[in-house]
Amino acid sequence: MASSSDHASNELALARQKEVLARPMTETRMLANAVRALSIDGVEAAKNGHPGMPLGMADVATVLWTKFMKYDAADPHWADRDRFILSAGHGSMLLYSLLHLTGYENMSINDLKAFRTLGSTTAGHPERHEHPAIEMTTGPLGQGISTATGFALAEKMLAARFGKSLVDHRTWVIASDGDMMEGVSHEACAIAGHLALNKLTVLYDDNSISIDGGTEIAMTDDVVKRFIGYGWAARRIDGHDPAAIEDAIKWAMRSRKPTLIACKTIIGFGAPHKAGTSGTHGSPLGTDEAAGAKALLGWTAPPFTVPEDILTPWRAAGAKGAAPRRAWLKRMASSNRRAEFDAAMASELPAAYADAMDGLRAKIAETKPNIATRQASQMALEAIVPVVPEMVGGSADLTPSNNTFVKSMGTCVPGDYAGRYVHYGVREHGMATTLNGLALHGGIIPYGGTFFVFSDYCRPAIRLAAISKARSIFVLTHDSIGLGADGPTHQPIEHLASFRAMPNVLVLRPGDAMETAECWDIAMHHKDGPVLLVLSRQAMPALPRDHGAENLSARGGYIVKGATGARRATLIATGSEVSIAIKAQAMLAAEGIGVAVASVPSFELLARQDHGYRMEVLGEAPRIGIEAASGFGWERLLGDSGTFIGMHGFGASAPEADLYKHFGITPEATVAAVKAKL
Amino acid sequence: MASSSDHASNELALARQKEVLARPMTETRMLANAVRALSIDGVEAAKNGHPGMPLGMADVATVLWTKFMKYDAADPHWADRDRFILSAGHGSMLLYSLLHLTGYENMSINDLKAFRTLGSTTAGHPERHEHPAIEMTTGPLGQGISTATGFALAEKMLAARFGKSLVDHRTWVIASDGDMMEGVSHEACAIAGHLALNKLTVLYDDNSISIDGGTEIAMTDDVVKRFIGYGWAARRIDGHDPAAIEDAIKWAMRSRKPTLIACKTIIGFGAPHKAGTSGTHGSPLGTDEAAGAKALLGWTAPPFTVPEDILTPWRAAGAKGAAPRRAWLKRMASSNRRAEFDAAMASELPAAYADAMDGLRAKIAETKPNIATRQASQMALEAIVPVVPEMVGGSADLTPSNNTFVKSMGTCVPGDYAGRYVHYGVREHGMATTLNGLALHGGIIPYGGTFFVFSDYCRPAIRLAAISKARSIFVLTHDSIGLGADGPTHQPIEHLASFRAMPNVLVLRPGDAMETAECWDIAMHHKDGPVLLVLSRQAMPALPRDHGAENLSARGGYIVKGATGARRATLIATGSEVSIAIKAQAMLAAEGIGVAVASVPSFELLARQDHGYRMEVLGEAPRIGIEAASGFGWERLLGDSGTFIGMHGFGASAPEADLYKHFGITPEATVAAVKAKL
Repeated sequence: MASSSDHASNELALARQKEVLARPMTETRMLANAVRALSIDGVEAAKNGHPGMPLGMADVATVLWTKFMKYDAADPHWADRDRFILSAGHGSMLLYSLLHLTGYENMSINDLKAFRTLGSTTAGHPERHEHPAIEMTTGPLGQGISTATGFALAEKMLAARFGKSLVDHRTWVIASDGDMMEGVSHEACAIAGHLALNKLTVLYDDNSISIDGGTEIAMTDDVVKRFIGYGWAARRIDGHDPAAIEDAIKWAMRSRKPTLIACKTIIGFGAPHKAGTSGTHGSPLGTDEAAGAKALLGWTAPPFTVPEDILTPWRAAGAKGAAPRRAWLKRMASSNRRAEFDAAMASELPAAYADAMDGLRAKIAETKPNIATRQASQMALEAIVPVVPEMVGGSADLTPSNNTFVKSMGTCVPGDYAGRYVHYGVREHGMATTLNGLALHGGIIPYGGTFFVFSDYCRPAIRLAAISKARSIFVLTHDSIGLGADGPTHQPIEHLASFRAMPNVLVLRPGDAMETAECWDIAMHHKDGPVLLVLSRQAMPALPRDHGAENLSARGGYIVKGATGARRATLIATGSEVSIAIKAQAMLAAEGIGVAVASVPSFELLARQDHGYRMEVLGEAPRIGIEAASGFGWERLLGDSGTFIGMHGFGASAPEADLYKHFGITPEATVAAVKAKL
Repeated sequence: MASSSDHASNELALARQKEVLARPMTETRMLANAVRALSIDGVEAAKNGHPGMPLGMADVATVLWTKFMKYDAADPHWADRDRFILSAGHGSMLLYSLLHLTGYENMSINDLKAFRTLGSTTAGHPERHEHPAIEMTTGPLGQGISTATGFALAEKMLAARFGKSLVDHRTWVIASDGDMMEGVSHEACAIAGHLALNKLTVLYDDNSISIDGGTEIAMTDDVVKRFIGYGWAARRIDGHDPAAIEDAIKWAMRSRKPTLIACKTIIGFGAPHKAGTSGTHGSPLGTDEAAGAKALLGWTAPPFTVPEDILTPWRAAGAKGAAPRRAWLKRMASSNRRAEFDAAMASELPAAYADAMDGLRAKIAETKPNIATRQASQMALEAIVPVVPEMVGGSADLTPSNNTFVKSMGTCVPGDYAGRYVHYGVREHGMATTLNGLALHGGIIPYGGTFFVFSDYCRPAIRLAAISKARSIFVLTHDSIGLGADGPTHQPIEHLASFRAMPNVLVLRPGDAMETAECWDIAMHHKDGPVLLVLSRQAMPALPRDHGAENLSARGGYIVKGATGARRATLIATGSEVSIAIKAQAMLAAEGIGVAVASVPSFELLARQDHGYRMEVLGEAPRIGIEAASGFGWERLLGDSGTFIGMHGFGASAPEADLYKHFGITPEATVAAVKAKL
């Protein structure tokens, strides 16, 4: 479809391609052609993939990787390397080709041949867990360019903390039209512009082609104008002119603002017939077109072969960073900040952390505060943040509601990155991608707040954190109908279930101040995935539980208060509903009916306990689940004969107490449910 | 916190407020003060709510509602009324005050007094189901302004179909800084600009205040520049100058582009001390400040009282639309398109629809195609679209993958809205809000396609459709690891569970071409909420089921093929995994083990069946569930003793067949699971 627009793009592109190819051959184009040839070969061998972008952006990437980017292929873990993010992750063969050509380990020709097959390092889209030089997993459009804000901010913050001699690197992004159309790019790039993250450069593959046809069928907004509106510097260049590319990158490196370089390229550059069409985007060129492209580019080597005279300069480029790396290692060796720097990069908690947590626990055990868990979270942050300098906080413009600010952090402002609190604005998704970037960069333990219901806006980024094992911490307050009169649009119902279903996400919903401290403690030790702290707006009493040294929440679930006499039922609840269970327990006890109350702050952690422990908690007696949310998935805890007390549709606008009563989530309803089982 | 910035805003605002109040009194300000007084009273009575925005935007809203907007308070259902969307939904008292003042039914003074209480029409945020003059539910920022694109597009399309004498109205939006910061505003406003929806006007409450403090702490991007980049016309005005407001609205009504009017206002206008601060945003002014504001505004009437000389001109404004409405009714009565128009607005399916569906079923029954369900969906669309002119399709730049385009629809392009297919670009969220707007406007049955995994991007809009009962249809293809080599970022795992947990969403995952036709038929009859059609990339055989006239999928689940001999287990599967169950059934039958196969295209619809039917389908024998997705929530069907065969983490990049084998979702694994139960 959209063939007429595609056809016009094609004719123009072929004419322009002819003009570009008629230009004198440069070393850059010769080197770039190696990227093109390998990308063609990878996609042809896999029989699927996306050749168009690697062919189009090869010149730009080659200039960047051979002349400007600071990296040493011998050590992908070098902390002061430049970060490269392929936001247009479908063009993964571009990245794999670059890694192979520059000489990274575990990116051999055989790895390229295994593109898109099970167990290869060369997945369809770049996967962070497959190779250390893949800075982040990309593929869902908009995520790479938006996570880059976090990478660039991490550099600024660490430079402010450790000084430029230890931290001084840049963040480079290759982004596509799709990245630009995604809303999250608006949020995160506005943040980057506001914070003047001038070491961030986006190389925008402005190829005028989308899957449905030429971009003019849907995308007529002016990207350059938009970014200038964000406080970026932006310019347009011919993406096939090495001199123009060099010039623009030098300009970007001098800029005091983040920079966008819109590179006018031809998608599928080199393809004799398909260049400039959506046909090259997501399908192999096919044998004839692939052969034709190589002929046109003057590439005569057999498939998956790079002639020595091309490979040598590529390998030299990959080793150019060795000297700066050695110099950096030397500076590091002689620095009195070395241990601190290493600990930060390894996310090791300082010794003072344990003391702070013990102190917090003791204080809560003593005062037994009747407060909202969002306030308890503030208490925890007041204890933790001063002793963990890696902690960077923020909120999507709900600071007074999320209780996320600790005074001693200071505020991060444009040009001064020593402050550790970020005002993200009403940009939940951009905040989430920034958290991911801060976490993936290393050296930072990021958390950010919003209302739990707006986790929906963050969801693509939370999923990517889960896939990438990024330890972003989300402080999600106002977690149920308990928020009251703001009504259905603000009351989470399905959100707990929706994240419990997502792999590698740790969902924690504490039921009082002590559990909140414990959940923060769990989060501080959880390094391999995102943590969601789900917190109440409303106050709740301290639970009548053991206040010893053990982190009971870390088991996922535990008996808060056992039954008096025989255990005739088990009330299983989370968060603010544990108090309801405790009240019901007392009412039942008054009638001589013994029931146990189990608090389950985390389904995931409870599932990891052994069968015996789980049965101890859940009990053999009839089970009643109480949660002011959708019951979807509660069968896992309640079994066939359980009863769920919770929400069965959306909420309503009214004071909190009226809502709990209206929806029947009360001690009285719990008592009735127990009696119905006896 | 951020008190210094707030303080500065406050001083400036108070000085400016003084200047504004010193201007000669106008009728507009007198009328606007009624909005202000009622808004103050509502929030004070509820003891919570958001007075700042109503006070700030009262002048703008008053000019719009008394001089320009086309509506008749006597008939909120008038099809050719202008649509008004309060994107900044937290300022709900502004809207309720306007509805009361202009004389709408069910918006009495008592309703205003009941603000934010259970069962009132005046919820914390405007809820569409509470009052017919509330065009859409708002509250989650970004949604209103972005849904407006759909409202404005619906008008253009209906005008193209029925002519300007029947359809000629405008869409007005009041939006806040938060709306502007949200990414979805970028997507949807770029669509509106691209499509030149010139009857859309956004009145932007440019008050420079966010919850965390002055907007300069986070939002320094140039909104006007950005919108001009989208192809909008934009200008800035003094939001407290009635003449300037009038002038700008006239300018907007002449524009050939969508228009943004940035209204510089003072949040909390009138509050003697708090004006210009975030303190007025989300909390009552308090008794003294409220009294002080009324004094400053010269408002002497008691709370919840509007003097006759103010109410009379307001009521006159509310009745101004009566004459144009009568004229429209007259034109409608004499139009030969009347029946067609009424049917479209009522979403009644034409007689030809049933024939088309019967024909489709007959064709599938005869040919038993072995195709992907996304291709079967294309077949269904080819049958339905030509006979249902209300159908408007589109895709977020995945048309060839989503199989959503039917040639006879034509394409919707800027300036010509007769085409019924929209290229949304890579803007899943903006597409979703546009679908919601098309649906909520009426007269259109919208559907839009993307990959199922990118439903994450659409989630806030899908939730709002569910709350608002908007019948947006989402065509979500590439629904599992079955999409193959694109890998984990593209493979949905938790998405089925996450939507099954969301209230009022109908999730349909058909298992062959016939079920796909049936699911489309269900969607076409489902008027009160969003429908998600979850479709495969990969082909699957026609199921060996009854091909009679009954829509078996409408029951949510049914026995595809019963057991030979005694039913020793039930295999329960959805979508592409039903075929796996059928294969396992045959393998078991060869060993003399009889099992039944149940297909469950919809958990929600099955849950609505009576207990007897459900037990017939699910059976008393051991149950094995098979779905290439998270098993979260499957306990509901499988019970304590069931076994789930599916995904237990994220996917991987490899050809489809390798993945199914790797993750153990195979007929062999199913056979083994059954044998383990015997």
